[in-house]
Amino acid sequence: MAKPAPLSINQVTTKAQWTLRQAIEGYAAAGVRGIAVWPDKIAECGLAEAVRLVRDHDMTVTGYCRGGMFASTDPATLRRLQDENRRMLDEAAAIGASCLVCVVGGLTDGSRDIGGARNRARDHLLELLPHARAVGVPLGIEPLHPMMAASISCINTLAQANGLCDELGAGAGIVIDTYHVWWDPDLAHQIARASGRIVAFHISDWLVPHDGIVTGRGMMGDGVIDFPAITKMVAAAGYTGFTEVEIMSPLDWWRRPPEEVVRTCIERYRSCF
Amino acid sequence: MAKPAPLSINQVTTKAQWTLRQAIEGYAAAGVRGIAVWPDKIAECGLAEAVRLVRDHDMTVTGYCRGGMFASTDPATLRRLQDENRRMLDEAAAIGASCLVCVVGGLTDGSRDIGGARNRARDHLLELLPHARAVGVPLGIEPLHPMMAASISCINTLAQANGLCDELGAGAGIVIDTYHVWWDPDLAHQIARASGRIVAFHISDWLVPHDGIVTGRGMMGDGVIDFPAITKMVAAAGYTGFTEVEIMSPLDWWRRPPEEVVRTCIERYRSCF
Repeated sequence: MAKPAPLSINQVTTKAQWTLRQAIEGYAAAGVRGIAVWPDKIAECGLAEAVRLVRDHDMTVTGYCRGGMFASTDPATLRRLQDENRRMLDEAAAIGASCLVCVVGGLTDGSRDIGGARNRARDHLLELLPHARAVGVPLGIEPLHPMMAASISCINTLAQANGLCDELGAGAGIVIDTYHVWWDPDLAHQIARASGRIVAFHISDWLVPHDGIVTGRGMMGDGVIDFPAITKMVAAAGYTGFTEVEIMSPLDWWRRPPEEVVRTCIERYRSCF
Repeated sequence: MAKPAPLSINQVTTKAQWTLRQAIEGYAAAGVRGIAVWPDKIAECGLAEAVRLVRDHDMTVTGYCRGGMFASTDPATLRRLQDENRRMLDEAAAIGASCLVCVVGGLTDGSRDIGGARNRARDHLLELLPHARAVGVPLGIEPLHPMMAASISCINTLAQANGLCDELGAGAGIVIDTYHVWWDPDLAHQIARASGRIVAFHISDWLVPHDGIVTGRGMMGDGVIDFPAITKMVAAAGYTGFTEVEIMSPLDWWRRPPEEVVRTCIERYRSCF
């Protein structure tokens, strides 16, 4: 089994079933050496205990999800969001995360100004950047699928993320998620362009029929994404880090026994790559 | 009221309520001078009668929907699809349609080869092109939203459509639909690039929350699309044709009285542009 990278699991994949302690223990028991963490789960467990659990199980933290979400025009709210993002960067540094995954937010309520939202996202990433550099945790800019442009992220293509990285420089990186980018006609070119800045590589599948933003994300092999092709592009761009399964699945995988979810992630990573 | 273009309604907007005759009479009675037609509705009415109705009501036919759908690898099926598309071009010519709206199809069953699907779509458009030129009806290449890449159309950006038009030359054009392209970070540039090839301009809104591929399309003003901004880009690219409302809405507008639907299209075209 020649794999391009070791496997990690984003704990959102077993969000409904497991605490952070259970996820770390459960993933480690199955031989998975990487995990991406979320602040609500860390808060539940306590940061010091989270750091100890990660260390004791020799886990690599492949991401801290998620910063960003700058969809406000209220100065006080935006200051609070900047503070929160800086606190998340501190936690990400403490737990040794490879990046703070940044999902920048969509349109503010009542707005139709997608260009303005994009400018605001850039400005807030720029404002956050010095702290990211100071704590040594890169901002992982993750373009989300264009169907999420209004609601969750106005950064929707790798071309945009690459443009932002050109502008931000050191301390900014890109998170590539197959679910969000597989359709992009410019994919090969933009992944090559991201060489040296890829800070995380997320995998999950695009289901067909696709029944909407919340429930259309599936386990590798259950959809239409060509994982070997995209993995090859990412490897050719020089990425040697973990490959991280991230599946939000309220109606399917979140309802299954977590041991089955983890076992299936491992099996599919073997059979689909 | 300075409008960039007169209003047309795609008859799919009242698909559940009205036959072609009723749609032509209903739109004309409300002062709408354009309609886009569908083959099932023409078949129901008969082509000769459809042509007569269009002429008698002095309607401009702003599109014939829809050709394409080349998602097959079976040679016999593909020959049949080519024949069907040629027949649709003939009907489109007979009824005086401004273009054959081409939606090229997505992945074939079991395939994960989006690049292959895109090559196949190009090849089939090339094969159809001489007949389009012969009957004088341009192929209106319509990029559909990336969320439809697998299921309905592997042409998902205006950049792709522009690239295809570069390749195909005379007889190929582009259909711009706000619902499919509003999110595109490269929108202004690609619309400018489409100058001289825009054969139809479709409008409908992107609803938030967006509850899926089938039901997320709404009436102008009910969503987040900045219609004046996009209309300005389309006008700057030299397009002077009709602006066509196209709303598939099984759970909302298809359930309302058709007169209300038409009245609302007109009102919103006045208030949102």
